[in-house]
Amino acid sequence: MQRDRDASPGPAPAKAQRKTTARPARAGRSAARKKVVRPDGLPKVDGHAAYADDLTFPGMLHAAVATSTEPHARLLGVDTDAARAMPGVHAVLTAEDVPGINSIGCSSDDQPLLATEKVRWLGDRLAIVAAETPRQAREGAAAVRGSYDPLPGVFDVEQALLPGAPVLHEDHPTKNLAAKGCVYKGDIDRGFADADVIVEGTYEFGMQEHAYLETQGCVAVPEADGGITVYASMQCPFYVQEAVATLLGIPLSMVRAVQTVTGGAFGGKEDYPSEPAACAAILAVHTGRPVKLILNREEDIRWSSKREAQRVRHRIGAKQDGTLCAIEVDLYLDAGAYLGLASVVADRGNASVVGPYRVPHVRVDTHTVYTCNAFSGAFRGFGHPQVAVATEAQMDELAHKLGMSPIALRDKNLLRAGDVAPTGETLPAPVEACDTLHAAVDLMNYDVARKKVDAHNAKNTRTRLGLGVSTIAYGCCLHAGGQFLEGAGALLQLHKDGSVSIAIGNTEMGQGATAVMQSLVAQELGCALERVRVKTVDTDLVPDSGPTVASRTTTMSGNAVLDACQKLKAELLPFVAETFGVRADAVSFADDGVRAGRKRMDYTALAEAAYVAKRHLLAAGWYAPPRKDWDTSTGQGQPYSAYAYATMIALCEVDTYTGRTRVKRVAAAHDVGATIYPDGAVGQVEGGIVQGLGYAIMERLNQQQGVIKNPNFTDYIIPSALDAPVIDVALIESRGVGEGQAAGPYGAKGLGEPSLIPIAGAVGNAIRDAIGARVFTMPFMPERVMDVLDQTHRRGDPLALLPSVNR
Amino acid sequence: MQRDRDASPGPAPAKAQRKTTARPARAGRSAARKKVVRPDGLPKVDGHAAYADDLTFPGMLHAAVATSTEPHARLLGVDTDAARAMPGVHAVLTAEDVPGINSIGCSSDDQPLLATEKVRWLGDRLAIVAAETPRQAREGAAAVRGSYDPLPGVFDVEQALLPGAPVLHEDHPTKNLAAKGCVYKGDIDRGFADADVIVEGTYEFGMQEHAYLETQGCVAVPEADGGITVYASMQCPFYVQEAVATLLGIPLSMVRAVQTVTGGAFGGKEDYPSEPAACAAILAVHTGRPVKLILNREEDIRWSSKREAQRVRHRIGAKQDGTLCAIEVDLYLDAGAYLGLASVVADRGNASVVGPYRVPHVRVDTHTVYTCNAFSGAFRGFGHPQVAVATEAQMDELAHKLGMSPIALRDKNLLRAGDVAPTGETLPAPVEACDTLHAAVDLMNYDVARKKVDAHNAKNTRTRLGLGVSTIAYGCCLHAGGQFLEGAGALLQLHKDGSVSIAIGNTEMGQGATAVMQSLVAQELGCALERVRVKTVDTDLVPDSGPTVASRTTTMSGNAVLDACQKLKAELLPFVAETFGVRADAVSFADDGVRAGRKRMDYTALAEAAYVAKRHLLAAGWYAPPRKDWDTSTGQGQPYSAYAYATMIALCEVDTYTGRTRVKRVAAAHDVGATIYPDGAVGQVEGGIVQGLGYAIMERLNQQQGVIKNPNFTDYIIPSALDAPVIDVALIESRGVGEGQAAGPYGAKGLGEPSLIPIAGAVGNAIRDAIGARVFTMPFMPERVMDVLDQTHRRGDPLALLPSVNR
Repeated sequence: MQRDRDASPGPAPAKAQRKTTARPARAGRSAARKKVVRPDGLPKVDGHAAYADDLTFPGMLHAAVATSTEPHARLLGVDTDAARAMPGVHAVLTAEDVPGINSIGCSSDDQPLLATEKVRWLGDRLAIVAAETPRQAREGAAAVRGSYDPLPGVFDVEQALLPGAPVLHEDHPTKNLAAKGCVYKGDIDRGFADADVIVEGTYEFGMQEHAYLETQGCVAVPEADGGITVYASMQCPFYVQEAVATLLGIPLSMVRAVQTVTGGAFGGKEDYPSEPAACAAILAVHTGRPVKLILNREEDIRWSSKREAQRVRHRIGAKQDGTLCAIEVDLYLDAGAYLGLASVVADRGNASVVGPYRVPHVRVDTHTVYTCNAFSGAFRGFGHPQVAVATEAQMDELAHKLGMSPIALRDKNLLRAGDVAPTGETLPAPVEACDTLHAAVDLMNYDVARKKVDAHNAKNTRTRLGLGVSTIAYGCCLHAGGQFLEGAGALLQLHKDGSVSIAIGNTEMGQGATAVMQSLVAQELGCALERVRVKTVDTDLVPDSGPTVASRTTTMSGNAVLDACQKLKAELLPFVAETFGVRADAVSFADDGVRAGRKRMDYTALAEAAYVAKRHLLAAGWYAPPRKDWDTSTGQGQPYSAYAYATMIALCEVDTYTGRTRVKRVAAAHDVGATIYPDGAVGQVEGGIVQGLGYAIMERLNQQQGVIKNPNFTDYIIPSALDAPVIDVALIESRGVGEGQAAGPYGAKGLGEPSLIPIAGAVGNAIRDAIGARVFTMPFMPERVMDVLDQTHRRGDPLALLPSVNR
Repeated sequence: MQRDRDASPGPAPAKAQRKTTARPARAGRSAARKKVVRPDGLPKVDGHAAYADDLTFPGMLHAAVATSTEPHARLLGVDTDAARAMPGVHAVLTAEDVPGINSIGCSSDDQPLLATEKVRWLGDRLAIVAAETPRQAREGAAAVRGSYDPLPGVFDVEQALLPGAPVLHEDHPTKNLAAKGCVYKGDIDRGFADADVIVEGTYEFGMQEHAYLETQGCVAVPEADGGITVYASMQCPFYVQEAVATLLGIPLSMVRAVQTVTGGAFGGKEDYPSEPAACAAILAVHTGRPVKLILNREEDIRWSSKREAQRVRHRIGAKQDGTLCAIEVDLYLDAGAYLGLASVVADRGNASVVGPYRVPHVRVDTHTVYTCNAFSGAFRGFGHPQVAVATEAQMDELAHKLGMSPIALRDKNLLRAGDVAPTGETLPAPVEACDTLHAAVDLMNYDVARKKVDAHNAKNTRTRLGLGVSTIAYGCCLHAGGQFLEGAGALLQLHKDGSVSIAIGNTEMGQGATAVMQSLVAQELGCALERVRVKTVDTDLVPDSGPTVASRTTTMSGNAVLDACQKLKAELLPFVAETFGVRADAVSFADDGVRAGRKRMDYTALAEAAYVAKRHLLAAGWYAPPRKDWDTSTGQGQPYSAYAYATMIALCEVDTYTGRTRVKRVAAAHDVGATIYPDGAVGQVEGGIVQGLGYAIMERLNQQQGVIKNPNFTDYIIPSALDAPVIDVALIESRGVGEGQAAGPYGAKGLGEPSLIPIAGAVGNAIRDAIGARVFTMPFMPERVMDVLDQTHRRGDPLALLPSVNR
């Protein structure tokens, strides 16, 4: 796959033919590809990797945070006297000690870092404490006392919108309706009038905890010239840089953010790390000493952002032949007490809820709502997994009502090249939605599986099998609303000994960005993989490259890396041509060096010669995609640069005595455009499926009146390796996008999120297939499955289930 | 002076007229210039600056070094058993433990980091030790035992060249003659045949200790991926990077060198820091822990490089009218046991020894010689101060013999535009040598001073006054032999809040590079000085930018900074033009923003708008001067990119009872091309004068059989503030160099070294003027002055001195 773009012309290799014809490449068939060993892998395994908590600086203090004990109250005062008197405590700071602007909101200025007049949830910070040890800091924080005038709380999104509901932000123009989005296409009333069949459903989604291995943590180190360096476990160093500059009231040039090895993130380290970083930075500046702030697991689960709870009221109408007529959705997202990223999450849910289907008439109204619940934010999939579960459930219910196979219903309605998407955009070729459906059907050997499932169900009393399918269209990179963040930089150095360094502004958080960038540089320069070292992410090295989110790293930073490589080659080319005495167009970069005819220099010789000749061996790459237009008043336009399609089919087993679901096998077909790091791509899919099935069937964050009752991994259960199904992956390499779209290197699209998004929908549909009834509330916990079994079959034999909707 | 290159055309400001006419600007007259406060100043004064020894890392060990007890011996073995058994010791490593190549020589592979078969001086390392505490490390090092077969030592440069002398490097083709240089011009025999008067003299120069405030020190930190980061007090991060990579046997991409705040260097942190850095790095890799190595003062003085001892045998011939006919020189430099930088130092001495004079016939033979003495290396002036003392002494002796004023003799012979330099190069205009002479004469009010001196000497019995002059032509930047090192990079970031970061590859070591770069960026971008932060030097940020030596930082890094600024402006220009709706050539960058006619945006607004428009706000600048040709076999060609001329006149008082000299007043006139940071320029001159007068009259490194007898500041005396004379400075801003030459930003030339080089010669000549006899051995210690007084006047009244040579 590592296609040599500089090789001399000749017969195109077989893989290159995929450029125009989308064909699935089954993982494991790529033995001819060079095996890439993740450079970041070994240190994580052998213990050498230095996480934030492994850092120590001379004179370093430890921080802790005191939070509200009321979910909603006027804050009359914060008494820090007792805390200040605690042993080892050096500083106890409240809102009035913030040197800059006391505002930490990622997309709105509704959130103070330290509470002032009100508290709106239990995570609101009253004070921050620095002490000699973490224990002393926490004991200091525990001694902080708030005086409150309690207010009634509000914990349900629709109740929060009712007249008379307690209002969290009195000065917000639409009160608890924090933000609004929509997609309006066609005439929704006519659409439903045209329909022969209508299906309605309301789907509920709880919060999901990111459950990264490493909790949130950072160290802020004051620099001699008044600057500050923040070392943190994070996805978005430029967010942290900006937040710290704002809170300290100093220029961005004075703040350096350096990513420490990050033990998982999944969106949970997108916006939230700015909060501990700002706390540590303020304490560091105040005390003149480095300050470390590491959350323990309970603090982390209580305070950090979660995948937001959603309620999806969904109505779908179709002709008897299955042709979709109309979809209307009322989407409610629970922001928690502050907007954070919730409205941005809502933008993706809003733009994605109709799914990858041709639908002439659409009405989507999306409501992002303030409540006193825990903090919502980014999580792999970013609002899309929930809406995909709802839409794909509705498609299956429709198929059931129509008596069609869910495969056939999707095939009939999936978007094709030239179709107008629900968001009003005419999609240029290639549109690989159907390709992914067919590839997944092939991978699962669907017809045979169907028969086996039916045979099993006919014979077994306790366990029921089910097959479920889910197809999505994932909008690549940031939504049009966030495109001001969308540029990315790369800094490439060729050292005089022929080794190469590359720095980017997007982070490695386990997803394999390091290996991708190493591969890209090697491929583009035509040098050996071993020459390339990928640097730690550091805001000193590259310009603001936006957040590491939205599966954008390979695309954005990847393109910036290509730009840097091309600039370096442009600097080297005339030098090589002169050295060889040939024309520049005769020179190729390949096979770990340069050559022209029979003349050849490897990178070691080339680098040394170019160094002695004083060529500029550093190149700064940059990429920013073309601008997109999006009309927020209609939800019509081009919300994303391109789309990555995916279909998953899940085979599940439901134990009708316990309600427990097991995901046994998953076929996953992904339109990836191109794969840069094949093992990483397959790993992303496998990881996404396991994390997504945890979300689907296990992970229930138990929140009552804003209190998280299970802030630990004893009561909040995540999948283990034993829960992983057999997974078959097909990566479809169409190697390009259509006119007006933008892709990554060699046509690559994002995969980090599309690998998670479809699985819960497929599992939900498989459970429906297995037990003949729909569970509308996710996660599909055993007790919820049992409830549905009880309700559906309460008057009869629980095993005499409804016939399967699937054929 | 901060000339606005982007301002709209109009009447040229008065200063700009200096471009073609060299005119002195007396320091202090520049009140109109913007006052620059050194950004690095306050932290050094208030204690916030973090020096190498202020750094701590988790698990850090401390290193110490065990050295030879013999100045010359076969090394039979190193016994580390006792050392390994010492409390707290983690590792005791010898040559066989070096993972890479055991070679640390800066310009030759003659020097192992850890001794193998031989020891050649007392600084040869037998073993390196890592322990829990510095004390335990030193106790471990003290327990290392070498077994030796002693060999006779050699400690004098000319004795080392005699047949039968002990040979340090048996396989060196010319034995103890480590390297050879020459300048051959015209016909030397004919030159002396033409001469009416010939003066001969042999001048001796001892070593000078750099006496930086902060001793050598570093910390090596192993990185998780097998890389290593070295934090060090140093001038040349790229030397350290390369040395560490070589010794560890890893690619350059795996080694990062970060400069810590550096408490003085003066050349002493050019090559030497590679040695402790490599020691610390090897121990760090071996133990898997960070390792700190800080030398105490005695170790530092014993082991680190010194200004090399020289012997200059000088012969000069002139016509009766003062026209120089011939100069011949045999120059001997004591390298110590390894070449280090000695032959590179010799290159500058060799090319500079004839001085800034028109001399038709020249023979210079320069010998760099191995001895068992302490290690020679770089020191501000780099071989030039010694030869300038000799040549300027010879000029004065010639003036005396001819009955001419030393001013007139110089004026007659100084190089002018169109003249052929002793190295064969025809010098294009401007050549400011005479300008500096005349400016210094004016500053000193020479004729009045002369009369006052004569009047004093006529009346006083104990104290004698003297005036001495010295003129030099300093070759800017690196010698042609080192031009492969001569490129420099710069990394410029405009942050979205309008703040600016600049990184360069040359270091701040007290000379004011930070303030220069801040000023340059502000001037070139037309932004406020306060917006600009200069980053810590870090090999990650810029390509190999060569060493921070040879007064090259303002020139090389300065030009790279201009290149980066121009690239950034080229990126911004079309954006601004589009935003303003004007043509690009209507836009100017000035007054902290951009404007076109009445339209204006400050940098805050500009940066934000450009960021949102996703312009590339990082620029990588690069500068490499044109190549120079130099024929090593004849010493003819273009040794330097350009020349900075300087003249100093010193007024000294000699106490004829004690021999003590006081430098009372110095007039210093420097051709600087252009000043970027005026206070810094004046500060350089003042500092150079005080350091140079210490070298001239106080600083005697007492070395006997390779043993430094005064490795401390009790017995090695350096000047204090009380020894500083009144200093008047004239900075001549010719603002340009001639065809084929290369200068820094706005025509700036180096000043760091020319500010030291002339002073010792001026002081030597002033002592000669005061006491009527020449002291040929420097430093001109009281006992040496007394010896000369005794010898010269031993048969008469010591106060009936010879008449002054000066008129």
